[in-house]
Amino acid sequence: MTHQAPKGTRDFFPPDLAVLRHIETAWRDASIDAGFDEIEGPTFEHLDLYTVKSGEGIVNDLFSFKRSGGDVDYALRPEFTPTLARMAAAKGRSLPLPTKWFGIPGHFRAERPQRGRLREFKQWNVDLLGIDNPSADSEVIATAIQALATLGLTHKDVVVRISHRDVVTKMLLNSGIPKDKLQVALTLLDKREKMSAEVFEEKTKEHGFETKSFTQFDCDVSIEHEELTSLQEELVAWGIQEWCTFDFNIVRGIAYYTGIVFEIHERSGAERAIAGGGRYDNLIEMFGGPSVPAVGFGMGDVVLSLVLKDKGLLKDGAHYMPTPDVFVVSACDEGDEVLSSTIAMLRENGLHARRSYKTTRNVGKLLTEAAKTQAAFAVILGKELEQNMFAVKDMKSGEQVDIPIDHLLSHLTS
Amino acid sequence: MTHQAPKGTRDFFPPDLAVLRHIETAWRDASIDAGFDEIEGPTFEHLDLYTVKSGEGIVNDLFSFKRSGGDVDYALRPEFTPTLARMAAAKGRSLPLPTKWFGIPGHFRAERPQRGRLREFKQWNVDLLGIDNPSADSEVIATAIQALATLGLTHKDVVVRISHRDVVTKMLLNSGIPKDKLQVALTLLDKREKMSAEVFEEKTKEHGFETKSFTQFDCDVSIEHEELTSLQEELVAWGIQEWCTFDFNIVRGIAYYTGIVFEIHERSGAERAIAGGGRYDNLIEMFGGPSVPAVGFGMGDVVLSLVLKDKGLLKDGAHYMPTPDVFVVSACDEGDEVLSSTIAMLRENGLHARRSYKTTRNVGKLLTEAAKTQAAFAVILGKELEQNMFAVKDMKSGEQVDIPIDHLLSHLTS
Repeated sequence: MTHQAPKGTRDFFPPDLAVLRHIETAWRDASIDAGFDEIEGPTFEHLDLYTVKSGEGIVNDLFSFKRSGGDVDYALRPEFTPTLARMAAAKGRSLPLPTKWFGIPGHFRAERPQRGRLREFKQWNVDLLGIDNPSADSEVIATAIQALATLGLTHKDVVVRISHRDVVTKMLLNSGIPKDKLQVALTLLDKREKMSAEVFEEKTKEHGFETKSFTQFDCDVSIEHEELTSLQEELVAWGIQEWCTFDFNIVRGIAYYTGIVFEIHERSGAERAIAGGGRYDNLIEMFGGPSVPAVGFGMGDVVLSLVLKDKGLLKDGAHYMPTPDVFVVSACDEGDEVLSSTIAMLRENGLHARRSYKTTRNVGKLLTEAAKTQAAFAVILGKELEQNMFAVKDMKSGEQVDIPIDHLLSHLTS
Repeated sequence: MTHQAPKGTRDFFPPDLAVLRHIETAWRDASIDAGFDEIEGPTFEHLDLYTVKSGEGIVNDLFSFKRSGGDVDYALRPEFTPTLARMAAAKGRSLPLPTKWFGIPGHFRAERPQRGRLREFKQWNVDLLGIDNPSADSEVIATAIQALATLGLTHKDVVVRISHRDVVTKMLLNSGIPKDKLQVALTLLDKREKMSAEVFEEKTKEHGFETKSFTQFDCDVSIEHEELTSLQEELVAWGIQEWCTFDFNIVRGIAYYTGIVFEIHERSGAERAIAGGGRYDNLIEMFGGPSVPAVGFGMGDVVLSLVLKDKGLLKDGAHYMPTPDVFVVSACDEGDEVLSSTIAMLRENGLHARRSYKTTRNVGKLLTEAAKTQAAFAVILGKELEQNMFAVKDMKSGEQVDIPIDHLLSHLTS
């Protein structure tokens, strides 16, 4: 009898998880350095939290369910923004403004698993509530870039493609798309890069649209738009203009966005979007809270990992695993007797202390095992015990000295 | 329109999450110091992973579901051991022995929420595979104690109640319980402390048991049992004998345990069990892997938090939140112009840098805001800019000096 992980989910063995933790650390550090406070919410929510406002972009992929024997409709969280908006709304007027929140929760989408898309993934969410000017958009984008830079990416590797719902809407309407078909056109534009030219052509015809309604976004568009002009200045002030470009092909499928939207992509177009976000100035009010402008983004671990791998920026997982301060081996019966108490003492004092579980007395073999773990020191419990001493080997220099038992801790930590 | 978190789940606002992170840090540090490597698995598994081997103790509380429109039976993970056993089994003969794994995943149980019991919670899992002697049991228990000690608990606050399935089974059979009713008797003994004496009396009669079959465990039982004698020696060697007691009232409801079982409780019996674990020497083989002995435990965040609160060992959440290295304020138009670039520079260099979003020029008010965040330094962008200087205030000493702009970073980090 063998069991498998469910389709589209992952088992993280230690080296796999070490890679994820490496990415999460870059996310967390960038968030905290930028003054965002961490939050978390339930892994599943009432289904209607998603059906009400997210639009079909998310709802089609919901992992919705009723508990066996239960009658409440739930859904595994496909994104974090509705939970965040619900939490902000619950605070009501007591929500301090601005509020800067981040989180790194797990998310779930019932899509067909494929490259860059899994059914369970981690997503970094960063949201700034209470400020409706482009400086806030810029700060949020700068926070995303900070994490990417920490992971080794440069503005030559990735690009933040910035768009604006108003501009795109206006251009679509001006090109002859009827108002009642606007949402269909936005969705089609959003998905355009993910389909072949032929399929796209077919779809435009199906809805009675003209191709040029969409291809107009491929040329450099010169837009007079106050918010975008102001955003451009802020991107310069934040020193991130080289990472950013205006690109009105970007729509974001989710219905609650109200202004600026953006996606981060590998610059040559490899892989799917690394991150996506934008302004959602009405959402908190829609969830029963005060009227609070907001901007934020989500960045998943799956596509980012692929891009980092493609660029040679991910080392083998073992590289990111913690290494011991000390590795303890016993070379005689007297050593066996004090092995547990020695290990216990070291750990109680906050040292990462491993031991050999081998029964061999061959110190060479035991030290080879110590070296494999990349321990800083090896402590050998051997004949030196008769003089109340441990033999302590510095694994880097190879130097070995005898240390009185009650000086061990100070020797290792000095 | 207002939305609520689902029954039995939690919204973690920043101070709430800071408390959870404080606990998780103690768990993680104790695990890493003791040489355990972190793993993770899927949040939901195929239902049969739990129905096959866990026994009714867990299966009754499963959050099982079919996805709407799907036909595969899933369950939100109620505990981690089956996932761990599945992952170990998948490695087959290539699993290094011993393997020491820990994890801090989310878990889900569809119970009626009550004090100490929620539908979603975090649980620390520690497992040592490949060693079948009491030294391994002792090491695992010592790791649990290490985390509790880091959180401020002593052996006067909590106790590890250690039992053994063989001993309990033998005592039940010797007292006249028929073999075919053994599992029922074990379950009843496991639940005894959670029910009133009257209800317990009723239940024993219902099954035709005698009360003394169960009350025999309340007296000091003098047992000749090789494994327990050896475990007692190991507990002394690990220096944790004061934290531990043998107590054959402990059974653990889960069916896969094979030898030693234990629970950690508040010493006076307040709250539910803080942790529970034991030996499960057959589980990995049952899941299609090699025959590998194993011992481990799980410790949830909910009961532990209650015990820590009861003992006054949890500070206000704000205490555990990160505080800024520097808080930047602008006191003039020239300051506004360089505010974003200054903040960006500080964050790029790994400093936790916050700013005021207020438009006031009142430096006193702005510094009050800086003080509230407990920032180490405040940087004032004021009239000193004319001399290419920032005013930098050490928020602890109150000392304020003018620093050339390009010396700011070295001043703050020295």
